[in-house]
Amino acid sequence: MSGEVVRIPPCSARAVVLEAGDELVVIDPEGEQVSDLVAFNRADMAEYLSSGRSIDYASRLFLTTGDVLYSNRSQPMFTLLEDTCGRHDFTLTPCSKEMFEKLYGEEEGRPGCEGNLAMALEPWGITRDRVPIAFNIFMHVAVDGESGEIRVLPPKSRPGAHLRLRAEMPLVVAMTSCSAGQSNNFRYKPIDFRVERARTASAARPG
Amino acid sequence: MSGEVVRIPPCSARAVVLEAGDELVVIDPEGEQVSDLVAFNRADMAEYLSSGRSIDYASRLFLTTGDVLYSNRSQPMFTLLEDTCGRHDFTLTPCSKEMFEKLYGEEEGRPGCEGNLAMALEPWGITRDRVPIAFNIFMHVAVDGESGEIRVLPPKSRPGAHLRLRAEMPLVVAMTSCSAGQSNNFRYKPIDFRVERARTASAARPG
Repeated sequence: MSGEVVRIPPCSARAVVLEAGDELVVIDPEGEQVSDLVAFNRADMAEYLSSGRSIDYASRLFLTTGDVLYSNRSQPMFTLLEDTCGRHDFTLTPCSKEMFEKLYGEEEGRPGCEGNLAMALEPWGITRDRVPIAFNIFMHVAVDGESGEIRVLPPKSRPGAHLRLRAEMPLVVAMTSCSAGQSNNFRYKPIDFRVERARTASAARPG
Repeated sequence: MSGEVVRIPPCSARAVVLEAGDELVVIDPEGEQVSDLVAFNRADMAEYLSSGRSIDYASRLFLTTGDVLYSNRSQPMFTLLEDTCGRHDFTLTPCSKEMFEKLYGEEEGRPGCEGNLAMALEPWGITRDRVPIAFNIFMHVAVDGESGEIRVLPPKSRPGAHLRLRAEMPLVVAMTSCSAGQSNNFRYKPIDFRVERARTASAARPG
């Protein structure tokens, strides 16, 4: 069942609860915007989406259609089903107050994706300290394989680009419209998402 | 004050407590061996060494002499003072029981660096779930900047290679002799380390 499109306003975050089999579609409505995504096992929030495990099992830094995103316990959390952008990042922590002060020279850094994710996850007891490296959807980090140098470039996502992820376990997920200028060519824009509930959902969820 | 060399036997881990200013020298005595290192703020173990922050601030995947390793709270935890190897990894989680089952086909995976780090950190209440992406000293992960493909190659460390790190805050640190065959050319070997206490240590630490 295809749900309504939910808009995440610029520089903010939203949380959503998924059952196994539900599909989450993350959309870049205007193009060149990033959404930092983190996820936790709803039954035990100590289990979280792990970049280090996912990259190790894929043997690739850049994940796309067909790849599986794993938890720190090596359990599948998502399968990537459709990807009309093709480039995402899984190496950097969400932008944060301190990052804006250090890298952007802001006197009093904005909360950034880290602060916004923590706010969205506050009902589940997740604090800033527990916001890990995010799956940075549409984020374009160029990597020099020789020197290891990285550069944050404007995303390759065109207006309407989307990534479809299938939940492989019951999850709490939080996503942002990224607050970092480098990630969206300094034009802070919204992100949209839609949840398509699994057909078996009515059996799995009384009421 | 130069401390004794401590040997970490193959496929195990050790923890050590550092004051700000202490220097930790991690040595590969036989060459081609990896040591996964994790660190926590001794005063508040929720603050930990963060690959995502460190890579972001260095704008480089491969860190070496002069680089700073940051915590999840964007505070300096270590400065890298000397590096006679020049290549380390900061993208992969420590090898684990599940990783050995998935990638190496072991029926009952060994605890790996993740399990060994958790055992070493047990007195500080750190469980497997809280072992993050490690700073994988001497680990050689080749990266294809175009495809993002990664390959774990034999380390570039020659016998006696070392990395010297200065602690920038009071820390609990744990290090391994890596249990993963790919990381040491399938010759499981020891790692040595030595702590050189800061000259001001006697003032800072009564007793």
